[in-house]
Amino acid sequence: MSNQERSAPERDDRTGDCRPGLLTAPLDEAHAADLARTFKALGDPVRLRLLSLIASRAGGEVCVCELTPAFTLSQPTISHHLRLLRQAGLIDRERRGTWVYYRAQPPALDRLAAFLTATPHPTTTV
Amino acid sequence: MSNQERSAPERDDRTGDCRPGLLTAPLDEAHAADLARTFKALGDPVRLRLLSLIASRAGGEVCVCELTPAFTLSQPTISHHLRLLRQAGLIDRERRGTWVYYRAQPPALDRLAAFLTATPHPTTTV
Repeated sequence: MSNQERSAPERDDRTGDCRPGLLTAPLDEAHAADLARTFKALGDPVRLRLLSLIASRAGGEVCVCELTPAFTLSQPTISHHLRLLRQAGLIDRERRGTWVYYRAQPPALDRLAAFLTATPHPTTTV
Repeated sequence: MSNQERSAPERDDRTGDCRPGLLTAPLDEAHAADLARTFKALGDPVRLRLLSLIASRAGGEVCVCELTPAFTLSQPTISHHLRLLRQAGLIDRERRGTWVYYRAQPPALDRLAAFLTATPHPTTTV
C-alpha cells in the first residue's frame, strides 16, 4: 500500500484526542497494551456471541435472564464472560429490581473500528 | 440504542457475501468462532505492535530483518507472533532472496472494522 493510501489519525470527538490508526504510525507500548486487552476480550466465541446478542437487540439492552438460556453454559460462566466484556469497556450494565440489564458501548466499538480501518473512507476530510 | 441506529449488513465487494455486523443480528456459532480467532490474534501487545509496524510502513512492506531489532524479544518469538498474525489472515509474506517481507492485508482489517462499527456512517445507503 502506498503512502497516499494511509488513513488520517482518528480524532475522538468527545475528548479531542488524536488516536493513531493502525496505518498511521507504529503503536507505542502503552497504547498497544491497552488495545490488546480490548481485542483479547473479543477473542472468544462466547463473548462475541454475548456482545452481538446485546448490541443487536432492539431497544439496545438485554436482561441477563435472557442471555443465560441462549447458551449451554452455566450462569457463573456467562457472568464471567460478561464481566470481561464490561472490564474491556465494551458493555455496561444497570441493575433494576431483581435483574441486571446489559447494553453495548458504541463509542468503544467505534474506537476499535476506526483503529482497524485500513481503507480510507472516500468522504474523509483531513 | 434504537432500531433506527442499527447498521446495515456489510457487503463484501469481492464476493458479494452479506456479512452481518455486530449490531445487525446475533452471531451464529461458526461465524463467532471464525471472528474470535482473528480478534485473539490481535489480543497481544507484541502482535499489535508488529502489525502496526508493518501496516504503517511507507511502501506497505517490511523486511523481517527490520522487525526483530524493534523488540527486546528473540527472533523465534517474533517469528511465532508473525505466524499467528499470518494464520489469522492479517498479514502476508513473500520471500525474496535471503529475506522475508511482510505486508498487511487491508481487506481483512476492513472486514473486522466493518463488523465492529456501531455508528452507521452518515453516507451509508441501504
